[in-house]
Amino acid sequence: MKTITIIGMGLIGSSIARNIKQHNLAETLIAADINADVCEKVADLGLADYVTDDLARGVEDADLVVLCVPVGAMSMVMERVAGSLKDNVIITDVGSVKKSVIDAVKPFCRADIELVPAHPIAGTEFSGPENGFAELFHGRWCILTPLPETSIKAVEVVTKLWEGCGAQVEIMDPAHHDLVLGITSHLPHLIAYTIVGTANELEDDIKSEVVKFSASGFRDFTRIAASDPVMWRDIFLNNKDAVLEVLQRFSEDLTAMQKAIRKGDGEYLYQSFTDTRAIRKDVIEQGQSE
Amino acid sequence: MKTITIIGMGLIGSSIARNIKQHNLAETLIAADINADVCEKVADLGLADYVTDDLARGVEDADLVVLCVPVGAMSMVMERVAGSLKDNVIITDVGSVKKSVIDAVKPFCRADIELVPAHPIAGTEFSGPENGFAELFHGRWCILTPLPETSIKAVEVVTKLWEGCGAQVEIMDPAHHDLVLGITSHLPHLIAYTIVGTANELEDDIKSEVVKFSASGFRDFTRIAASDPVMWRDIFLNNKDAVLEVLQRFSEDLTAMQKAIRKGDGEYLYQSFTDTRAIRKDVIEQGQSE
Repeated sequence: MKTITIIGMGLIGSSIARNIKQHNLAETLIAADINADVCEKVADLGLADYVTDDLARGVEDADLVVLCVPVGAMSMVMERVAGSLKDNVIITDVGSVKKSVIDAVKPFCRADIELVPAHPIAGTEFSGPENGFAELFHGRWCILTPLPETSIKAVEVVTKLWEGCGAQVEIMDPAHHDLVLGITSHLPHLIAYTIVGTANELEDDIKSEVVKFSASGFRDFTRIAASDPVMWRDIFLNNKDAVLEVLQRFSEDLTAMQKAIRKGDGEYLYQSFTDTRAIRKDVIEQGQSE
Repeated sequence: MKTITIIGMGLIGSSIARNIKQHNLAETLIAADINADVCEKVADLGLADYVTDDLARGVEDADLVVLCVPVGAMSMVMERVAGSLKDNVIITDVGSVKKSVIDAVKPFCRADIELVPAHPIAGTEFSGPENGFAELFHGRWCILTPLPETSIKAVEVVTKLWEGCGAQVEIMDPAHHDLVLGITSHLPHLIAYTIVGTANELEDDIKSEVVKFSASGFRDFTRIAASDPVMWRDIFLNNKDAVLEVLQRFSEDLTAMQKAIRKGDGEYLYQSFTDTRAIRKDVIEQGQSE
């Protein structure tokens, strides 16, 4: 690649930038962010060759544009930059939802523009360019959801970017991606946010004890529930159908657990708690955890 | 202490044994377990001075008995050993629920016997004597819930045991303990078991993808849901009231989240996801996480 422009220099955008610089994945790297404070941090950290808060100018020379903004901001960003995009530019993104990103971005793409939606399965509960790091994607998956009209060449360009960042690439249908991630990511985050919120509404004296004794399980949920609020608001607003579908299944199962506890049905509880061990074993065997 | 007997040599019992031997917390350590295979492992690992699968004989010389069996087995164990207990012996336990353990153990205690219920807030998803380790309790809390008739001297003996294991001791009312742990531990485990169970019922092709992409949030739940099924069955059967109470609050909050997603109420979601960050900050400030 000659010139790559990253729009949105938060945790993910800045981590990609670090990889591009470290592994020379582009001749020129331009970082664009509408937030002037973020631009200043990026410049101070030396993460890109050029830094600008003018998105349209930022994309003028780009051969590849990587959209690293919250899912709900994709449309606004494309509206700003569409008129400044070079011929045959490749657009990709890092959004956690794929169908709605395609709906938001595609209308702004001329016929010569290639769109390769992508989602790196990586992140931390910290935000901002100062919290990014090159190793964030090492050994992690990045899912691409190309459109029927996307060229193989464009998919290869984006694949190379992600392999250059240390990730493994997987191709998937956008709707299928949204369902799988609804289960593996969106539902767990919704539940973690909810349980921490439930604790947050307790009386102050109990709340301080919940924090004090959080190592007994609750602590793991607080980490997940410290994730970026704007990013997650947009995910739930933009993957509504899949999230509501898996939430419905979860609620039914939780009601069954509740009933078993109320009735004192030890056999049901024991069987349920035994069955779940098999999935943990699979997770470990597939190298997704220790 | 002259002689300590540990009944139940699983993860917790064997970890206490390792501390007693390493830090010379007793002249003699006896390990008792009804499972002959466990006894053999304990003998092979050299975790105690004497090992027996005869619980009654195991407690004959004990000045302090530590019950490290599942909450639902406390009564059966006490029934077996009650006739063999020395005068003025101190009984303690490590159960995750305190009111029901007191109800199970107290009827077997003669007037000269002291009961000091205890709950170390520590554990892993692994079971058995081979998975215990001395550092398990380092810097963790151990909550004691003494009865009104328990002597200060007996509380001090159990406090010394736990401080000898590297834990910090906190005194609490049994019912209050059960409510606080219902929120910090029992509800999170119930939810983790449920969500992993929900995933377990998916069609096989989606299930394999859920495992593959589990690093996006789901993975953390599988670790919690790999905990010992018997131990957790007993916890839910024995802390029914507190668990059903906090589960009710959680379900209401989850329904509100569901409604917000269905209505597309971004403001509600954003506010909820922002409020939860404060608790994470408290957890980190109190040294309960990094």
